[in-house]
Amino acid sequence: MVAEVRAGVSVLGGSSAGGSAAGGEPGSGSRRGHDDDNAALWRVLRTRRDHRHFLPTPVPDETVARLLDAFAVAPSVGLSQPWHVTVVRDRAVRESVHAGFRQVRAAEADRFTGERRTLYDSLRLEGILQAPVGLVVSHLPPGGPVLGTTSMPAASEYSVVSAITLLWLAATAEGLGMGWVSLVDPAHLSGAVPLPPGARPMAYLCLGHPALDLNEPLLQSVGWGRRRPLAVDWM
Amino acid sequence: MVAEVRAGVSVLGGSSAGGSAAGGEPGSGSRRGHDDDNAALWRVLRTRRDHRHFLPTPVPDETVARLLDAFAVAPSVGLSQPWHVTVVRDRAVRESVHAGFRQVRAAEADRFTGERRTLYDSLRLEGILQAPVGLVVSHLPPGGPVLGTTSMPAASEYSVVSAITLLWLAATAEGLGMGWVSLVDPAHLSGAVPLPPGARPMAYLCLGHPALDLNEPLLQSVGWGRRRPLAVDWM
Repeated sequence: MVAEVRAGVSVLGGSSAGGSAAGGEPGSGSRRGHDDDNAALWRVLRTRRDHRHFLPTPVPDETVARLLDAFAVAPSVGLSQPWHVTVVRDRAVRESVHAGFRQVRAAEADRFTGERRTLYDSLRLEGILQAPVGLVVSHLPPGGPVLGTTSMPAASEYSVVSAITLLWLAATAEGLGMGWVSLVDPAHLSGAVPLPPGARPMAYLCLGHPALDLNEPLLQSVGWGRRRPLAVDWM
Repeated sequence: MVAEVRAGVSVLGGSSAGGSAAGGEPGSGSRRGHDDDNAALWRVLRTRRDHRHFLPTPVPDETVARLLDAFAVAPSVGLSQPWHVTVVRDRAVRESVHAGFRQVRAAEADRFTGERRTLYDSLRLEGILQAPVGLVVSHLPPGGPVLGTTSMPAASEYSVVSAITLLWLAATAEGLGMGWVSLVDPAHLSGAVPLPPGARPMAYLCLGHPALDLNEPLLQSVGWGRRRPLAVDWM
């Protein structure tokens, strides 16, 4: 099987491609030998939170630009990189986004009743006006067919989600907090922020210095839900 | 503004919530002081690749289970955790998945013409039969309304993508390789793998020891595409 794999390499003609020395004990990190990186990654994964409380401490453009390097290393289907980012500091724009959020929140509240509704109404669900930086991340469909999207066209949007997830981790590792506000209407966001033709907003992200240390998901702390064991089937 | 934020905390009633000591220089990692974690994270982000070439070296169940802990720390809209995982080692099942892949690949090939088609036909796009472990990751919609999904229902599927992305990084940090095969038909996957009612496959992931050291995306090495600078607007 290895011979078959190696044979495939010449077909691909990759300049950097070459057989690796992998093959040690699984989990030993034999390929790169970065056990410390593994531990560090898990510290970042475990401390990442969906923040909605921010300090007014500024976040410089250089920091934002550095975090956005996450897009440069993000996976994308067919290497299509189907994304666009708008960095929003402007107060008036954030107020418009916040107004849109309030409308969606009011509509969503009606989906819950009784004690659940009471709890919902008490929740803090965004930090649009508090966070010094907002990020509108949009899906920007490439022209022409994209490798890998024929049976799952949504893989294009999924690429944007992967990039946002890496950005989230990068912010966490810098000691910053990020929050993904999904209670925004893409059409409203498109009106609040000038976007390239064809771009569709997928997320409004709040970025700043977190005002709270959260040792678990905020929605768990407040009793909205609990983390459950993963459902896994083995076959 | 800080007072306002702190006032919000009592409303939330979070047991673990408390003001942080954050407020130092942005990017200094003042909140957690883990500059080393930041560097380690970026090493993992920069070395993550979409692998399609695998060694036959086994990957034990314990390793798979450890990597799947990524789901336990993944973000999900409204803490809904709308996911299900099937770990596939069975050869017959993988052959069925591979047969489905071949059909989709043949259909996709027709979307490209000329030199592009020739190059497409030469590409290795999956490692379904080579990788010792396959993972079918499905979206499992929760019953009832989910907080945060009213204006962007797809946020539920996006949660699954975020979890897959974390899993990808965890595999990378262990020296393993993962490949996301999007050229699979969800309906075909549902037929190949028993799934809970309502579950819809979103990804077939190949997991194993990578046979190639890839210093850049494989699709860039073979000339299919190139990484571009991120399009960012600042306002």
